This record gives sequence, C-alpha cells and structure tokens, in this order.
Amino acid sequence: MSTEHETGGAPTKFGVVLFEGFQSLDVFGPLDIFNFLSKTRPLQLSILAKELKPVSTSFPSAGFGQSVVPTHTFQDAPHHIEVLLVPGGGGTRDDENIAPAMEYVKRVFPNLRYLLTVCTGSALVAKTGVLDGRRATSNKNSFEWVKKQAPNVNWVSKARWVTDGNVWTSSGVSAGIDMTFAFVSAIYGESDAEWIAARSEYRRQTDPDDDPFAKDPEAGSS
Amino acid sequence: MSTEHETGGAPTKFGVVLFEGFQSLDVFGPLDIFNFLSKTRPLQLSILAKELKPVSTSFPSAGFGQSVVPTHTFQDAPHHIEVLLVPGGGGTRDDENIAPAMEYVKRVFPNLRYLLTVCTGSALVAKTGVLDGRRATSNKNSFEWVKKQAPNVNWVSKARWVTDGNVWTSSGVSAGIDMTFAFVSAIYGESDAEWIAARSEYRRQTDPDDDPFAKDPEAGSS
Repeated sequence: MSTEHETGGAPTKFGVVLFEGFQSLDVFGPLDIFNFLSKTRPLQLSILAKELKPVSTSFPSAGFGQSVVPTHTFQDAPHHIEVLLVPGGGGTRDDENIAPAMEYVKRVFPNLRYLLTVCTGSALVAKTGVLDGRRATSNKNSFEWVKKQAPNVNWVSKARWVTDGNVWTSSGVSAGIDMTFAFVSAIYGESDAEWIAARSEYRRQTDPDDDPFAKDPEAGSS
Repeated sequence: MSTEHETGGAPTKFGVVLFEGFQSLDVFGPLDIFNFLSKTRPLQLSILAKELKPVSTSFPSAGFGQSVVPTHTFQDAPHHIEVLLVPGGGGTRDDENIAPAMEYVKRVFPNLRYLLTVCTGSALVAKTGVLDGRRATSNKNSFEWVKKQAPNVNWVSKARWVTDGNVWTSSGVSAGIDMTFAFVSAIYGESDAEWIAARSEYRRQTDPDDDPFAKDPEAGSS
C-alpha cells in the first residue's frame, strides 16, 4: 500500500482543540508524536480554544493542573486545517464548557481531511451529530455515558482504536498514542512511525482490536 | 512492604522543571498520572521555569510546538517541594538554555524527598554533580552523549528505569510513564497505580530491567 506521503499529498496542517478540563495525555501523547514528525517534514500546528488565554487540564479548577497556550481562537482558526485532534477529559461532561469546541468541530468537519479523537473526545464530537452512522470508540470506563451522548453512532465496545473513513477514534487516554502511531504509519509511512517509536522508546500496540480494557461481556473480554 | 501512604507520610508537594525545548511526553506522561493521583488525595503542583512566560517544546523555535505556563520562577519557587520531575528534550543540548534549571536542581536537591528524571533530564541533573557515584539511566538514543556529560555517574545502559536511593531516572520519553507508575506504586500503593492505569487504559511495563531499546552489546541486548 502506498502512503499519502509517497504520493506527495500527506497533510501538513494540524490543529488541536482545547477546552478547560482536557486530559493532558490525550493531547500530548499524540502531539509528542507529531512533534517528532515535524522534524522530518514541514508541519504546522494550530492550538485552538474559545479564547487565547491558557487552557487548564483542571476543571473545575482544583489547583493541580497544567495550562497550555492556544495559538488561535475557534473564531480566528486558520481555514486550512487538515488534521484535527480532539482530546477527552473531565471537561467533556459539562455541555456549556464544550459548546464552543462542539460548534467549531461541527463547522469544520466537512473540510477536514482527518479527524482524530482520544478518549471521551469522541463523545464531544459525536454530540455534534457528525459521527451519526459511523463506527467509533471511546474510553471504556465512560462507555455507557458516551453511548448515551450520541445513540446514533455505532459505538464499538472492544477496540484500541477504530477507523471509519477519515475519522479515527481511540479508546481511553493512552490509546491515543497507539492510534497516532497507526495514523502516522498509514498516512506518512511505517518507517516514520518506527523512527518515532524508537526515539520515544515506545512499544507500539499495532492491533486495533486488542483491547483488554473492554467491559462489554458480549465482546468476549473481561 | 508498607508504602509511605500507609504510614501517613507520602509526599504531597510536586514540582516540575521546564526549559525551552523540553520533550512534551517527558512532562505530560508523568504529570497525567499525578493529575489522576490528585483526584484521590490533596496534592500541589508547582511548574517552575526561568521566567513566568510560557515555555515551548520547540527549541530553537521551529513553529511546531506547544507552550506551557509556569506557576513560579526558579527564584520564587516554593521551598517545600518534595518530589521534583526533570524532563529531557532537545533543549538539554544547550548549556546556556539549561543553566537556570541546573542551578535550581543543584540548590534544592539536598532538600528533596524524591528526584525523578525522564530521558535526557538525567543528563541535565547529572551535569550538576548531584548524581556522581549514583546509578542512573537515560535515553538510549543519546546514551553516549549522556555519559560524556557526567562521567562520574554509574550509567546503566540497559534499564527501563533505575532507582538509587531517592533518585529515579528513566530511559527515553515513554519510559517516564512506566517509571512514574512504579513510583506511585512504591510510594502511594499499588492500588492507586492500578486504578490510574485502568483509567488511562495503560498497559504498564513493571520490570525496570526489561529494556528492548538498550544498545550496549555487552548488556546482551540488541
């Protein structure tokens, strides 16, 4: 299979959606991989939020967290973003908190080349309706809640990650790392994915169906 | 073995050292675990840097990176920090860039209860002299460079992480996650470590000697 990189058209313009109470590893697991990828080819990253003020992992603010600086508001986001990453986290449980992010995702989804979600980021995206009829997964600890957020999605209860067309959704938190390595391998080439994994000293899980955290007994897992 | 948590004295005051060009996963792998830990008990986090302005993963600035907001300068850091995390990253290669962080680490090391480093964070710390005579490890891709930075450290060429007294040093990037789970297990209890791993859907590597990334042929690894 020739990758998009080999055919010259791999995406270079990345965006990540932040909201108060995002899960830090949901964001920085994938972004650390893209940071490495940016050393091999010119890439751009836009960090998007409701406002330009730093966005905290802690929501409601609890004193133990980290704040990341956006580069653009949702209103002023570049129009050319090709790959959009949407994290999960406790903040997804508050509709008002994620309303600006949902509005942005719904607006730009038709123009994206790829949408990647980690953990309950898939719930945020699914609540906009854009995943209706598609297969997707999410954090297994929050799976019942996630299903209720968007009952018209074909939620996959046993998967490390799921791809459906141009939408990649991962299971909880650390699963975003494995999904992103698979994404890099598929789109930029396995040699790039292997190079980054070696630099990161990361043992990839490459089987999207291998999910020891699945809770659905019908899926045949504990 | 009773943990410090069971005996009532587990540390609650955390600090992380930032400098331009830190590796994002070196910081957010461990911090995501401590973020979860902070939901089970009151913890404090100080994010320390030379100045209060946001610190970028990108150094020299290359346009693809993320910036994190410090809470304190090294000069104004709280005096009570018990657990200090020092990441690695490309920024450790520039002596002038890491000089303020090195000065801080050297000054506070005698008062720390635990020092944790990820990747080439051990080189930054070792260059201050505080690891002389101790066992430590680092990123295996940069191992020869690391050894030259501090020849009086007993560098362990095959290890996912190494503990020597109150100093925990991990191998490259993602190894910080496994080390931090082991730290949480040792200091706060295995049940906390297991609870966080389940929430993160993370498969821990629990053997500190299992290191497929070791490059030293004498260590018997590829």
